[in-house]
Amino acid sequence: MDGKLIVFEGVEGSGKTTQIQKCQEWLQNCDRLGGASVVVTREPGGTELGVGLRRLLLEGHRDLIHDRAELFLYASDRSQHVEEVLKPQLAKGAIILCDRYTDSTVAYQAYGRGLNINLINQLNQLATDNLESDLTLWLDIEVEIGLERARQRGAIDRMEQADLAFHQLVQQGYQELAAAYPQRIVRVDASKSQEEVQAQIQEILREKLG
Amino acid sequence: MDGKLIVFEGVEGSGKTTQIQKCQEWLQNCDRLGGASVVVTREPGGTELGVGLRRLLLEGHRDLIHDRAELFLYASDRSQHVEEVLKPQLAKGAIILCDRYTDSTVAYQAYGRGLNINLINQLNQLATDNLESDLTLWLDIEVEIGLERARQRGAIDRMEQADLAFHQLVQQGYQELAAAYPQRIVRVDASKSQEEVQAQIQEILREKLG
Ligand SMILES: Nc1ncnc2c1ncn2[C@@H]1O[C@H](COP(=O)(O)OP(=O)(O)OP(=O)(O)O)[C@@H](O)[C@H]1O
Ligand SMILES: Nc1ncnc2c1ncn2[C@@H]1O[C@H](COP(=O)(O)OP(=O)(O)OP(=O)(O)O)[C@@H](O)[C@H]1O
Ligand SMILES: [Mg+2]
Ligand SMILES: [Mg+2]
Repeated sequence: MDGKLIVFEGVEGSGKTTQIQKCQEWLQNCDRLGGASVVVTREPGGTELGVGLRRLLLEGHRDLIHDRAELFLYASDRSQHVEEVLKPQLAKGAIILCDRYTDSTVAYQAYGRGLNINLINQLNQLATDNLESDLTLWLDIEVEIGLERARQRGAIDRMEQADLAFHQLVQQGYQELAAAYPQRIVRVDASKSQEEVQAQIQEILREKLG
Repeated sequence: MDGKLIVFEGVEGSGKTTQIQKCQEWLQNCDRLGGASVVVTREPGGTELGVGLRRLLLEGHRDLIHDRAELFLYASDRSQHVEEVLKPQLAKGAIILCDRYTDSTVAYQAYGRGLNINLINQLNQLATDNLESDLTLWLDIEVEIGLERARQRGAIDRMEQADLAFHQLVQQGYQELAAAYPQRIVRVDASKSQEEVQAQIQEILREKLG
């Protein structure tokens, strides 16, 4: 596989979607890519099946979806996404910018909801067929600031309604993941302006994509 | 838990839904139950979440849902069903008549599709939180006859469109499960008339619930 899987992670409102867009524009105007295409995708919801699942996960059913049922839905979405999008695009040499991946499940389900982390790691491995990101950019921001940004952006979904304590556990999850996997996960200071955050990201990518 | 979980299994058109209805009527008019309620349910689709998943699984997306993605959807449906319906009803002492359960996943996904059986057994245990049926009635019928009945019934869904060889692998799955778990799985000759099949079932239930 010649392509690269670059994942953007972080709490709500940390700027993942914003930075992915900027990054896509930059990469598409970038000489060094040598014609590789840039693909933007997301989890959940990166496939037709995933869109249906994302609807089930984020709308309605409030407090109704049990923890394990939710975990299996994310695993299903991920597995479909890996087979339908990530593997074929990597095989074609694409640079993939992916909004959330396995670390989100660890942060939200294991740290946030307290589900068994070994179970989650196992499910992640099964769902991805062991496909790891080449690089994960962790957009680190204080939970309160991220939530406030998301609130100002508009409609608040099921996840964002969860309480502050939950999001702080998620944040702790990202911190521990970054400490545990320093080769794969690079921290970005996401509290800065959009332009400054993008500059940090470009510097990291210049180094990693060479 | 005082209730009983009675599962009906078998290939398409074996008569599961027909026999569950008859069985429900019989049990509701049965003195020996001592006031226990009779609950009819199904997998997939026994919960609100499950109805959405059933739609995703059976309609559209033809040939599009990858094997592992499908497996996780069934696990999600099952997990939700166990927590939302089976456990609470068993705790109330209900007699549950359930249209398909864990053995369907073994028969269809492991035998039919060739997915790893250890993985499927693990997922079944996780999804059910180790809740096994008290009794599984395997409605045994020749695949061709079952499919012909289903065809005459009307609309043919995604599963029924799969080829004969697939359904024969599923049938083999049921045979091997029945041989491996003789305490839990009881074979019923489902090639007989509806009344004769129901008579066999009532005899088995009299013995087991008696
Ligand atoms: N560096 C920044 N400074 C201030 N506001 C920002 C910054 N980056 C993004 N925003 C704004 O904050 C809001 C959230 O950003 P964005 O949607 O990119 O976050 P996200 O991480 O994708 O959130 P979610 O997890 O909810 O999808 C948007 O309205 C966006 O314009
Ligand atoms: N013993 C029987 N003899 C003849 N026809 C039967 C018998 N039992 C059921 N049928 C008919 O066969 C068709 C399939 O039966 P049924 O829907 O109960 O099967 P099923 O196992 O629930 O199938 P599916 O797996 O597709 O839900 C129905 O039209 C039903 O009326
Ligand atoms: Mg976003
Ligand atoms: Mg039926």
